[in-house]
Amino acid sequence: MTDPLIHRLNRKLRVGILGATGVVGQRFIQLLESHPQFEVTALAASDRSQGKSFVEACTWRLPGDMPEGVKQSIVRPPIPPLDCDFVFSSLPGDIATDTEEDFARAGCPVISNSSSHRMDADVPLLIPEVNHEHVALIDKQRLARSYDRGFIVTNPNCSAIVIVMALAPLHSRFGVASCVVTTMQALSGAGYPGVASLDANDNVVPFIGGEEEKVESETLKLLGRIKNGVIYDAEMRVSAQCNRVNVTDGHLAAIRVKLSQPATLDQVREAMASFTSLPQQLKLHSAPEKPIILRDEIDRPQPRLDRDAGNGMSVTVGRIAPDNVLDYRFVALGHNTIRGAAGAAILNAELLAARGYLDA
Amino acid sequence: MTDPLIHRLNRKLRVGILGATGVVGQRFIQLLESHPQFEVTALAASDRSQGKSFVEACTWRLPGDMPEGVKQSIVRPPIPPLDCDFVFSSLPGDIATDTEEDFARAGCPVISNSSSHRMDADVPLLIPEVNHEHVALIDKQRLARSYDRGFIVTNPNCSAIVIVMALAPLHSRFGVASCVVTTMQALSGAGYPGVASLDANDNVVPFIGGEEEKVESETLKLLGRIKNGVIYDAEMRVSAQCNRVNVTDGHLAAIRVKLSQPATLDQVREAMASFTSLPQQLKLHSAPEKPIILRDEIDRPQPRLDRDAGNGMSVTVGRIAPDNVLDYRFVALGHNTIRGAAGAAILNAELLAARGYLDA
Amino acid sequence: MTDPLIHRLNRKLRVGILGATGVVGQRFIQLLESHPQFEVTALAASDRSQGKSFVEACTWRLPGDMPEGVKQSIVRPPIPPLDCDFVFSSLPGDIATDTEEDFARAGCPVISNSSSHRMDADVPLLIPEVNHEHVALIDKQRLARSYDRGFIVTNPNCSAIVIVMALAPLHSRFGVASCVVTTMQALSGAGYPGVASLDANDNVVPFIGGEEEKVESETLKLLGRIKNGVIYDAEMRVSAQCNRVNVTDGHLAAIRVKLSQPATLDQVREAMASFTSLPQQLKLHSAPEKPIILRDEIDRPQPRLDRDAGNGMSVTVGRIAPDNVLDYRFVALGHNTIRGAAGAAILNAELLAARGYLDA
Amino acid sequence: MTDPLIHRLNRKLRVGILGATGVVGQRFIQLLESHPQFEVTALAASDRSQGKSFVEACTWRLPGDMPEGVKQSIVRPPIPPLDCDFVFSSLPGDIATDTEEDFARAGCPVISNSSSHRMDADVPLLIPEVNHEHVALIDKQRLARSYDRGFIVTNPNCSAIVIVMALAPLHSRFGVASCVVTTMQALSGAGYPGVASLDANDNVVPFIGGEEEKVESETLKLLGRIKNGVIYDAEMRVSAQCNRVNVTDGHLAAIRVKLSQPATLDQVREAMASFTSLPQQLKLHSAPEKPIILRDEIDRPQPRLDRDAGNGMSVTVGRIAPDNVLDYRFVALGHNTIRGAAGAAILNAELLAARGYLDA
Repeated sequence: MTDPLIHRLNRKLRVGILGATGVVGQRFIQLLESHPQFEVTALAASDRSQGKSFVEACTWRLPGDMPEGVKQSIVRPPIPPLDCDFVFSSLPGDIATDTEEDFARAGCPVISNSSSHRMDADVPLLIPEVNHEHVALIDKQRLARSYDRGFIVTNPNCSAIVIVMALAPLHSRFGVASCVVTTMQALSGAGYPGVASLDANDNVVPFIGGEEEKVESETLKLLGRIKNGVIYDAEMRVSAQCNRVNVTDGHLAAIRVKLSQPATLDQVREAMASFTSLPQQLKLHSAPEKPIILRDEIDRPQPRLDRDAGNGMSVTVGRIAPDNVLDYRFVALGHNTIRGAAGAAILNAELLAARGYLDA
Repeated sequence: MTDPLIHRLNRKLRVGILGATGVVGQRFIQLLESHPQFEVTALAASDRSQGKSFVEACTWRLPGDMPEGVKQSIVRPPIPPLDCDFVFSSLPGDIATDTEEDFARAGCPVISNSSSHRMDADVPLLIPEVNHEHVALIDKQRLARSYDRGFIVTNPNCSAIVIVMALAPLHSRFGVASCVVTTMQALSGAGYPGVASLDANDNVVPFIGGEEEKVESETLKLLGRIKNGVIYDAEMRVSAQCNRVNVTDGHLAAIRVKLSQPATLDQVREAMASFTSLPQQLKLHSAPEKPIILRDEIDRPQPRLDRDAGNGMSVTVGRIAPDNVLDYRFVALGHNTIRGAAGAAILNAELLAARGYLDA
Repeated sequence: MTDPLIHRLNRKLRVGILGATGVVGQRFIQLLESHPQFEVTALAASDRSQGKSFVEACTWRLPGDMPEGVKQSIVRPPIPPLDCDFVFSSLPGDIATDTEEDFARAGCPVISNSSSHRMDADVPLLIPEVNHEHVALIDKQRLARSYDRGFIVTNPNCSAIVIVMALAPLHSRFGVASCVVTTMQALSGAGYPGVASLDANDNVVPFIGGEEEKVESETLKLLGRIKNGVIYDAEMRVSAQCNRVNVTDGHLAAIRVKLSQPATLDQVREAMASFTSLPQQLKLHSAPEKPIILRDEIDRPQPRLDRDAGNGMSVTVGRIAPDNVLDYRFVALGHNTIRGAAGAAILNAELLAARGYLDA
Repeated sequence: MTDPLIHRLNRKLRVGILGATGVVGQRFIQLLESHPQFEVTALAASDRSQGKSFVEACTWRLPGDMPEGVKQSIVRPPIPPLDCDFVFSSLPGDIATDTEEDFARAGCPVISNSSSHRMDADVPLLIPEVNHEHVALIDKQRLARSYDRGFIVTNPNCSAIVIVMALAPLHSRFGVASCVVTTMQALSGAGYPGVASLDANDNVVPFIGGEEEKVESETLKLLGRIKNGVIYDAEMRVSAQCNRVNVTDGHLAAIRVKLSQPATLDQVREAMASFTSLPQQLKLHSAPEKPIILRDEIDRPQPRLDRDAGNGMSVTVGRIAPDNVLDYRFVALGHNTIRGAAGAAILNAELLAARGYLDA
C-alpha cells in the first residue's frame, strides 16, 4: 500500500551543486555521497576553479577524504544548463541573486542555502518540520516569475534554523509573543578562511555581520502563516545578539521566550519533547527521528557533545526553566553546517521530491 | 591643602591574605607587589600548604614570576591573629563563612572576595563606583555582631560586577526596570584546576554552578538604596544565563535593559561614557581613570583585546543599540580576576582606608 | 573453505570491562556497541560507582549517547569472577598491577590498556600489525605464572603505538638505527578531568609524566624479536620529547630516523604505503584496510582532519623528506583513544580470538 | 665618565616604519611608544592605506589602544625619502627586496625584519647577544653597494632567533655539531589574517611555508664567524620540523644537540644560565637582564606563562637532560613578535646606535 502523502520516484534525481568548492558545498557532497534519492552529477563554482577537475580545484577541508565519485568531475561555471535535474546552491550572496534566478528561469529548481532570496515574498523560507505548508508559495512564484519547471526554495540562516526549530512547538501550542536570543556561534559558520585564528583563539567576537538582522527577520517569516499564497509574518518580537566563539561546529543559543498563553514548565517541556512533524511521518531520508532532543543534564547541550545528534539534523535543547523577565528560558544547539546549511537544503529537497515538485 | 574626603595614612597598612595559594590569592599578591598603601605581611591557606614557605607551598600559575618578597613567607593556617592590619579573603565558600567571622570578631577587618557573606543584611556588597554609600552598613554590622575594630566587607561575583558597573549609570539616571543578561565567562573564573580542558576545548558549557542565581540576586543588592542602615533591593527584574567559553581571562556579557524612564540612544551612550564616581575623585590607587570605556568599533569589546583596559579595572562597553524586545542592548566586558575579584577587593580596601575604616 | 589462519567462533564472546567509567572504558563500550564477536556483559570500576547502575555511575563524556545496552548494568568491583569470557582493562596503574593478575590467575584472560604489565618479560606488548608473533609469550607466561586459561596481554602507550606503527615497515625492511621523536599529544590522552583548561588554552605544556620514558622503552620491546619465548629488544636508540597541545583527540609525532641500510626516498615511501600485515589478511573486524595512510599534501596529517581515518585505526603519515641530521623525517598521526587505547586492545582481542587464545 | 663602548646621542633619532599597518608594524609602534632613544616620525605601508591617517588606515590588533602619537600620522608610500633618520622594515618579502635597497641607496639605514636580504653575503643577520661582531659587514656592504650613509641590517626568522639564542652559549663553549629542532609556533607568526581559525582550532598544522629552510640556513649564518668581512657558516648540521599550534604568541622549540666537545649536564646548564653578552654590558634599552632564563620546574617553559619574560626579550629554557640519540635535549621558548621580530630589530638598532652607525 502506498503512502498517499509521499511521491515515489523511479530513479535517482541528478543533482548539481553551485558553490561546490566552498565549505558548505563540500558538506553537500559529503552528505550526498550515499544518498538513496539524489546523485551528484554536476559541480559548479564561481571562482577560478572552473575547468579543473574537482580534486584539483578544491582543497577538501572536512574530516575524511573527498568522495571518489566527484574527484574527476570538471568544475563548471554556474551558468545553466548543467547536467542535472535540480541544483543545490551555496553561492556567495552577491553572485547568488542573479545566478539562482537564471537557473530557475531555465527550468531548473534551485534549493538554496544562500541568503539572497530568503526574504522574497514569493520564495519559501523552509524548514520542513516547521512550515512545510509554505511550499505552496512555489506555485505563486512560478506564476509571478513566469517560471516553468524551475523555482527557488531557500533554507534559513544557520542560527535562525536552530532557534526556530526550538520555538516551533511552543509557538504552535502557546504562541510566542517575544523571543530574546543570544547566540554563541561556531567558526565554520563563517566559511573558509573565515575568521582569523588570532580573532578566534582565547577570544569571543561579539559581532557577526548581518546575523542579528537575519535572525530577527527570518524568524518572523519562518513562523508566519500562509494564506492565499501570502506569508503573514508571525506577530512576535525577536531580539538577537550574536557572538562568534572558538568552536569548530555547532551553534548554541541562549533563549528566553514570553508566551501568548500561559503554560506550565511541564507543558513547555512536553511540547518540545513530543515535537514531531511531517518529515518524520514521511520518513524523509535526512529527517531525524527526533527533531528536538530534550536533555535533562544540568550542563547540556554542549557543542562538542551534542552537535552530531541525529546525524547533525536534531536540535538539542536543555536547561528549560522559568525566567525572571520573560516566561521561560532554555538553551538550544544545532549543527550549523548540517541542520543549519547543507543538511537543511537536502531535507528541503527530500520534502519537495515527496511532494512532486522535482518531477521532470 | 588636604582633600577632606580622603583619610591619609602615615604608614603602609600590613595585609594578610587568606587563601593565598589559590588563583585569586596569587592575583592579590601580584597586584599588591608594589602597592603604595598596602604591604603583604601574612599568608594563610586552608590546604595542606601550612607551615611551608610560600615558594614551596604554591605553584604559581600567573604569567611572570612569584614576587620575591613573599617567597620565604611561611603559610599559616587561617586562624586569627595574623601579623597584619587587615585581611583579604579568597577562601573557598565552605571555609570562608566561619573563618571570616572569626577574624572580624578578633578585631581584624576582612575584605572578602568569597561569596559566603555577600548577601548578609549587615554586610556591604561593595563596588566603590556604584554604591560606596553602602559602607555605612559597617557601623551597624559592628554593633549587631559586637565587633570592635573588625568587620566584613565583600565584593560581588565576578560576572555581577561587570554587569552592574555597566548598569549603574543607566540605573542612576533612567532607572533599570528589567535586565536580561547572557554571559560568556572565562576559564580562570573557575579557579585551578577548575574546568577540565576536555570540557573547554572546542566547546561551550552552558552552565556554571550557582552563577545565575548570584547574578540575579547580587545585582539587586548592589543597586539597592541604603536608608537608616538598611539596604532596600533595587526594584528590578534580572534574568541571567551563564556560559563558560574557551577564554583564559575576561567575562563578556550580552545585556538588554528596559528603562524606567525614556532615554534616547545618545543619552544612554552619554550616561555610560561620562560615568565617573568617588574612587576617581579620591584618586584611589587602583581606580581606573574611566570606570567604563565606551568603544565604537562594531566588533568590540573582545576578551583578548580589552580585558586589560585600565589595568584590568575598567569595564569596556560596546555595540549599544535599540532592542526589539527590551529598550536597549549592549555588550560589556571586564577582567574577571582583576576587576571581578582581587582588584575589586583591593579597590574596596582603598576606599575603606580613605574613609578611615582601616585605622588601628 | 575455511581460512586455516583464523579460528572461527560459534558464539559471541562475553566481555567484561575493568575501569568502565573512565574515558577509555567508555571508548571500549562505544566501540563494542555493535561488535560482531564481542558482547559487553560485565562492567567493573574501582571507584565509588560500585553497586550503581552504569547510567547512574557514569558521566558519559563522549559525543553521542551512552549505548542503551549498558545503562542498567550494575557496576561491579574489579574482583574475579565476573560474568564474562575475558576482560578488557583500563584500570589506573596502581590498581591494575594486582587486579589484572588476580583475573588472569582466576582463569580470565586480561587484555589490558594499562601500563602496569607492559614491560613484564613474559607479557606480550602487542600491536597486531607489528609483532603478532609475540603472542607466543602467552604460553610461557601461563607456565611461569601457573595460569590455566588466563593470561595478560597489553597494548602500548598511546604515543608509542602511533610511532611504532610508522616505524615498523622501515624497521623490517631497512632497520631503524636511531629514532628522534617529538610528540604533540591530545588532551584526551590524560583522561578526565586530566589537563586543566588553564594549562591547555593558548598554551603548550612540554611535559607529560612518564611519557618520554614509555616511548623510549616500549618502542624497543615492540620492535624486538621473539626467540624461544624471549623478547630481544630492538637494537635502536630512541629519543622522545613529549608535549601536550590544545587538541581534543589525535597524537601527532614529528619523527626522524636513521636507517641501518641505505634506502632512497622512494623506497621509504613505498615501504610505508604498501604496509599491510596479518590483521588485514585475517580481515579482523577492527583492522583498518590500510594500517598506514600516506598523504601527499604538504600540510598533512592534521589531528582534526585525519584522526578518524580508518575509523580511528589507521595511522596517517605525511611530509616524508630527507633529513639533515638523521636520514629521513616525517610526521605521523593516530587517534590516541582508538588506535592508541581502546581500539588497540580490541584489535588485540580479535587477534587472540582468531588464534584460539580466548576459547573456553 | 663615559663608557668607551657606547656612543651617546644628544637627541632622539627619528624613525620611520615600513609596513606600519601590519601586525609587526604595530608591535614596532607599541614598543617604541616610550623609547628613550627613538621616536616614530614616519609611517609607510605598501597597501591601500596610503594617504589616510594611521587611525583610519590601520585596524589595531594588539591588546591596548593605538598610541595617541601616531593616530594622525599620514601613511606614506614606502618610497624614500621619509622624514626620519632610519627605518624599521616589516614589509612583505616581495616588496621588501627592492624597497629596502632603495632606502639604503638613498642614505637611509634599514633595520629589517623581512627575510629578503637575510642571506645576502654582505648583510648582517644580527642577534646582538650572539654575533654583534657581524656588524662589521656594514662597512663592506656600503663599499660594495656604493651606499653612503645607508645600509641594510636584518634580524632572523622568529623561530631561528629563539633557537640560536639557546644554542649560542653551547656553541661558543663546546661547539654544536648537530642540532635537531621541532618547533611549535604561535599563530601571530603568520601575521593577520594569517592562519584560518578552522585550521587552528582543535588542531596542529605540521607545515609552515619556508620555515624549515629558514631555520636550517639562518642558524648557520648566525653562528658563523666573520673574518676579513666574510661570514663563514658554522660547521653544523641543523634539522628543523616546524608546526603551527593553537597559541596566540610564543614559539616553543624542542631541541636536541650533539656537541663537538664533551660537556657535563652541569656545564651545559651553567653555560646557559650564565650567558650574557654585549647588549647587557652596554645596558641597551631593550636588552633583557638575562638573555636566557633557565627554569627548573619540570613543565616549563610554557608559552602562556613565559612568553613575556624579560619584557618578551628573554628566551626561557627548561627540561635540559641527556638525550639517547644526540647528547642533550631541552625546550626553549621566546616571544615571536617581540624577541622574534619587532623587539629584535629595535635591539639591533640600539646596538647600531651605540656603535655609531646611525649617526647623521
